[in-house]
Amino acid sequence: MDNKTYADLLTEVRAKRPLVHHITNYVTVNDCANVTICAGASPVMAHSLDEVADMVSMAGALVLNIGTLDAQQVESMLRAGAIANQLHVPVILDPVGAGATRLRTGSANRIIHDLEIAVIKGNAAEIATLAGAEGTIKGVDSCGVNGEPLEFAMALARELGLTVAVSGPTDVVTDGNSTLLVDNGHPLMGSVSGTGCMASSITGAFNAVSESSVVATAAALAVFGIAGEKAALQSRAPASFKVALLDELYCLTSADVEKCSRIREA
Amino acid sequence: MDNKTYADLLTEVRAKRPLVHHITNYVTVNDCANVTICAGASPVMAHSLDEVADMVSMAGALVLNIGTLDAQQVESMLRAGAIANQLHVPVILDPVGAGATRLRTGSANRIIHDLEIAVIKGNAAEIATLAGAEGTIKGVDSCGVNGEPLEFAMALARELGLTVAVSGPTDVVTDGNSTLLVDNGHPLMGSVSGTGCMASSITGAFNAVSESSVVATAAALAVFGIAGEKAALQSRAPASFKVALLDELYCLTSADVEKCSRIREA
Amino acid sequence: MDNKTYADLLTEVRAKRPLVHHITNYVTVNDCANVTICAGASPVMAHSLDEVADMVSMAGALVLNIGTLDAQQVESMLRAGAIANQLHVPVILDPVGAGATRLRTGSANRIIHDLEIAVIKGNAAEIATLAGAEGTIKGVDSCGVNGEPLEFAMALARELGLTVAVSGPTDVVTDGNSTLLVDNGHPLMGSVSGTGCMASSITGAFNAVSESSVVATAAALAVFGIAGEKAALQSRAPASFKVALLDELYCLTSADVEKCSRIREA
Repeated sequence: MDNKTYADLLTEVRAKRPLVHHITNYVTVNDCANVTICAGASPVMAHSLDEVADMVSMAGALVLNIGTLDAQQVESMLRAGAIANQLHVPVILDPVGAGATRLRTGSANRIIHDLEIAVIKGNAAEIATLAGAEGTIKGVDSCGVNGEPLEFAMALARELGLTVAVSGPTDVVTDGNSTLLVDNGHPLMGSVSGTGCMASSITGAFNAVSESSVVATAAALAVFGIAGEKAALQSRAPASFKVALLDELYCLTSADVEKCSRIREA
Repeated sequence: MDNKTYADLLTEVRAKRPLVHHITNYVTVNDCANVTICAGASPVMAHSLDEVADMVSMAGALVLNIGTLDAQQVESMLRAGAIANQLHVPVILDPVGAGATRLRTGSANRIIHDLEIAVIKGNAAEIATLAGAEGTIKGVDSCGVNGEPLEFAMALARELGLTVAVSGPTDVVTDGNSTLLVDNGHPLMGSVSGTGCMASSITGAFNAVSESSVVATAAALAVFGIAGEKAALQSRAPASFKVALLDELYCLTSADVEKCSRIREA
Repeated sequence: MDNKTYADLLTEVRAKRPLVHHITNYVTVNDCANVTICAGASPVMAHSLDEVADMVSMAGALVLNIGTLDAQQVESMLRAGAIANQLHVPVILDPVGAGATRLRTGSANRIIHDLEIAVIKGNAAEIATLAGAEGTIKGVDSCGVNGEPLEFAMALARELGLTVAVSGPTDVVTDGNSTLLVDNGHPLMGSVSGTGCMASSITGAFNAVSESSVVATAAALAVFGIAGEKAALQSRAPASFKVALLDELYCLTSADVEKCSRIREA
């Protein structure tokens, strides 16, 4: 896979402007909406059991983010996901805080079990938890894991037959067979609430226009990471950095992606 | 109506600082709160069936925005709206996503039927849907309509006996008899999630201080549009543009409104 | 207490990075998350009855903010608070809008009655309401009170045996015996939605690392106020000011706190 492939996906997102249906948390939802627009897609947030089926029918991707879950929201996720599966709309799961509470771990596992998920994207502790490895999580922040992200991501991907992405200084994206490592990004992204959620939104947008979820997910993470690198040239503190991050994503060209992507095979 | 009339309404909002009670979506709610402050009014968000009656009793306007509706929230809207009607507090409805799902279309119609609405403000597809014309909506974004916004807005306004506003490059504001067209605004406003919601918040603030909902609504849209024009001189990408948009609204003087409003009769 | 004491608390927050569990409103929740990070702590938002017990068990502080309360959320607050009390996790209550509706006043009083609260932090009208004095509140904004904040804060603190903080040009922090007055801050903070909520988040972070809730709360308010003073040197309008406020908080050093704190005994 060369960088032109990734660059072309950004062009494709902007040409098709897929609708990305989110059922997500109320903390970072506005950033998810704006990042989706800046990536070139169209966001919609809808959680009611009475409308998720209608809404997901128009969507190019469904993003399920359990950052502030409750029982009712999980029901909506399952209903939306079932329709998405019928219609072959890719479903992205961000298992925010899996490992921190039984509700989060249990709900993530239930969603994975009941639905056909295209991509699970989380931090190291969340993915370790789902892989049955040991992870330490404080609230929603990963504080270390036992073992190598690459290994438990591959194990989880193989077990479930889907794509797993682990965020970190180097992002890991794998379906258990082919694995891509993404070196783009900047440490300041970790000081902004919701950059993980935003990455999942972009992952949704890219999966809406690609058959390969490994390639689409790696491209999404690279694109967001490049925007972060460019933003860091302008700002050294989180709030102005977030503004610059969204602006840079909006201004990012496919030429930038071709030039700046640092994606390699494992 | 000359521009001084519109400018005076901004002065009036800032002098009276009306409370604008919102029952709104969780995506853009923070922007709605801040835009209300920047316009010179005072925002409050309260959705519980157990307090909406108390809260709306203190309010100068009630803004109902169905951007992330569910059955419970619609009940709260109906209860708050009923009290607002008793107390002659103007009710603004933003039928976000009407046409996209049956829940949205049905809830918007139920709110319109059960309450006395002062202003319905939406994009072309939403208003077309409510007018029984054909509109294409993808999530919450209008993707084209059959017919002219001016015509179906007038038809809807006449049918319901209220003011209808349709956002677009030229905003249409009409009660079926008198119609104002607002040419202020900037395309970058379309690249920020929630500018439609924010416009509804300002519309609430202006309707709180004016007897004429056509004039108040046109003034609100002009004021927001002028802020957008000024913001676009400083920024070319959505996130910094949003910061500038709120700042410019806060700094906008009635002299600016008198000088820069582009409102004309149809 | 000299300024070094307050400065050391900032160092302590950054060293320990306590988890601050929020059950809070959906209007300003993103700002609360980001301000917690910028102060040096780690935010988590979790409201489900099914997980608040698990989540608060990992936390250094619990912040309860009733800005958009409903019956279900209050139940979650009471459950989380009960566990926090068992585990000696300090509980901060921000009684947003107490006095505006019966639900808010009643819920705040119920939370205070059922739980052991470490700090109640509100504006003058909210605290006056809880103290049984007269306050005028429009939505969530204080519009004047009968009597002196210092007096009714002390009365309330003594009555309940906890620390009370009243925000204002001079913040009052008292446990009924020792009282600290904080002169830091800037009027522009009042033009941004949620600065009160953000102050409560920081108060949570500081109470997580200190035995004295009066000292911790005064330090938190001084730190936030200093950030506000620095931000006001860069920006004169609310939206860019908010960006600068968070940035300055993130960049604030303990040397800044030692030099710039204006905390005095009453």
